[in-house]
Amino acid sequence: MTAGISKMTYETTTNVARCMIYNAITDKLDISKLFTNLVGSSSNIFRIADFGCSVGPNTFTAVENIQEAIQQKYLLQSHELHNSSSSLVMPEFQVFFNDHVTNDFNTLFSSLAVGKRCYFTAGVPGSFHGRLFPNSSLHFVHSSLALHWLSTMPKELVDENCIAWNQSRVHYTNARIEVYKAYEAQFCRDMTQFLEARAIELVVDGLMVLIMPAVPDNVPLSQMHLGVIYDILGCVLVDLSKEGFISESKVHSFNLPIYIVSPNEMIGIIERNGCFSIEKIELCKPMSSVNNGEIKITPSTVTMHLRAAME
Amino acid sequence: MTAGISKMTYETTTNVARCMIYNAITDKLDISKLFTNLVGSSSNIFRIADFGCSVGPNTFTAVENIQEAIQQKYLLQSHELHNSSSSLVMPEFQVFFNDHVTNDFNTLFSSLAVGKRCYFTAGVPGSFHGRLFPNSSLHFVHSSLALHWLSTMPKELVDENCIAWNQSRVHYTNARIEVYKAYEAQFCRDMTQFLEARAIELVVDGLMVLIMPAVPDNVPLSQMHLGVIYDILGCVLVDLSKEGFISESKVHSFNLPIYIVSPNEMIGIIERNGCFSIEKIELCKPMSSVNNGEIKITPSTVTMHLRAAME
Repeated sequence: MTAGISKMTYETTTNVARCMIYNAITDKLDISKLFTNLVGSSSNIFRIADFGCSVGPNTFTAVENIQEAIQQKYLLQSHELHNSSSSLVMPEFQVFFNDHVTNDFNTLFSSLAVGKRCYFTAGVPGSFHGRLFPNSSLHFVHSSLALHWLSTMPKELVDENCIAWNQSRVHYTNARIEVYKAYEAQFCRDMTQFLEARAIELVVDGLMVLIMPAVPDNVPLSQMHLGVIYDILGCVLVDLSKEGFISESKVHSFNLPIYIVSPNEMIGIIERNGCFSIEKIELCKPMSSVNNGEIKITPSTVTMHLRAAME
Repeated sequence: MTAGISKMTYETTTNVARCMIYNAITDKLDISKLFTNLVGSSSNIFRIADFGCSVGPNTFTAVENIQEAIQQKYLLQSHELHNSSSSLVMPEFQVFFNDHVTNDFNTLFSSLAVGKRCYFTAGVPGSFHGRLFPNSSLHFVHSSLALHWLSTMPKELVDENCIAWNQSRVHYTNARIEVYKAYEAQFCRDMTQFLEARAIELVVDGLMVLIMPAVPDNVPLSQMHLGVIYDILGCVLVDLSKEGFISESKVHSFNLPIYIVSPNEMIGIIERNGCFSIEKIELCKPMSSVNNGEIKITPSTVTMHLRAAME
């Protein structure tokens, strides 16, 4: 995703995400459990990682929300412990910004340097489908609008001899079932690898908040606005190839590496992994402010939205 | 420093540095002291930071030398503890590569991704003259050929009304004493800030290895090859301004932000800081292989050397 994300996407996502993060930390993070050796411990560092951070500013907003919520929880739990023998000292925060090696970390770091940050920073290059951090070294894992990107495309989608050949489509929306199955299997492999890595890296009693675009259980993507957009994008590319702007083979060889999961699928993958307990899973409606008329939706805002997400 | 460092500089520096790092770790690092809560500890992570890493490959070579030496020391101390109640488990390594925000981290991360690394990586943007890491979060601090760069130039060097105005010179070599004193005071401020920050960040019983270009005690820089080179560089710039290639005012406003320290000066700064004990300070002669005739020194190698260090 490039830095130029549209205002609409940014605002709706940020507001929803802010609430989710606040509620998760307030309700589910037990800091006195997290730091079992509070008294006399030589280390009082709270380590946060944002997986798939891109170049900002969304990642900074998310981190500030996380930090603020944790600080409030600290104050609350400190107050509760006031008359006990234990005590909670506000930690220093160290934040790790992760994305692919090809992410523009120079831009990320330049943006980070602007303004005062109340945490120590580091950039971590590499795929979040593998190990990136030492054993038990993170206290809070966050990822927003990144896990729907597949690590690679299944080869059968571009193999003319396979039943899953996706020919002139660029996504599984409205495609044959074998295409969908190939996408689904790849997402399942990716998500499993993500969970396996994070299960090792996150400390016991740590918390993970994952925000992803999602589809309701048993609703095909073709009935959702995202599915319609992907379908239109595919039709546009086919038209462009017919008009000679791009080659037909390029359209045949391209498939959008995006899978939109449903809550039940996520529950299945997490339960099969077996390392995490699901504290809360929620299907939100970030488009509600659009439906309420608070935000005007026009062809140009949809195009900006799509372009920001795809580039 | 750009990636294209000359072979001569690289080889001589690397070999000397390798020996220094090995000896420092073997003789001075006590791992069983470092991890006092070995048995039952939930964390077994050894954190290394290289300050002023540039874009590689020197930083990778240094880190591999450090890691190898620490692993050997672990094996040695594990053997010694064999029959005691304690035990040492080989740690995971997390390496932090630090340089200015304007460093090319994208190139650094791309180079890191080539080849297998047996450690977790992170890039840390920011000036090492300030805090960059949480309290007590590093076990080994390293900096090689970076601390001689000054953070800023004293204003009096470019003020015509000051006695320290350096006019058509670009360094303190062969300049008046006030120029030298301005450089010296800036280095002292910078080094003090570096030590103050690292004193907070390094764990108790951690180790710091600093490799810097240096001048013997009581020997003026003008008598060393580096001083001669800086003098020649100044003369070249003055000649270029006389021939109209660059403006005279540019030469007047430019001073090389480099200070070459002596062992006694470093001892003084470290002792005034008061947070570190000096385990060993050594003035090496990396040019000995040049004097022995092992490496041929020619005008082009000197130019390459200078260019690589300055760009």
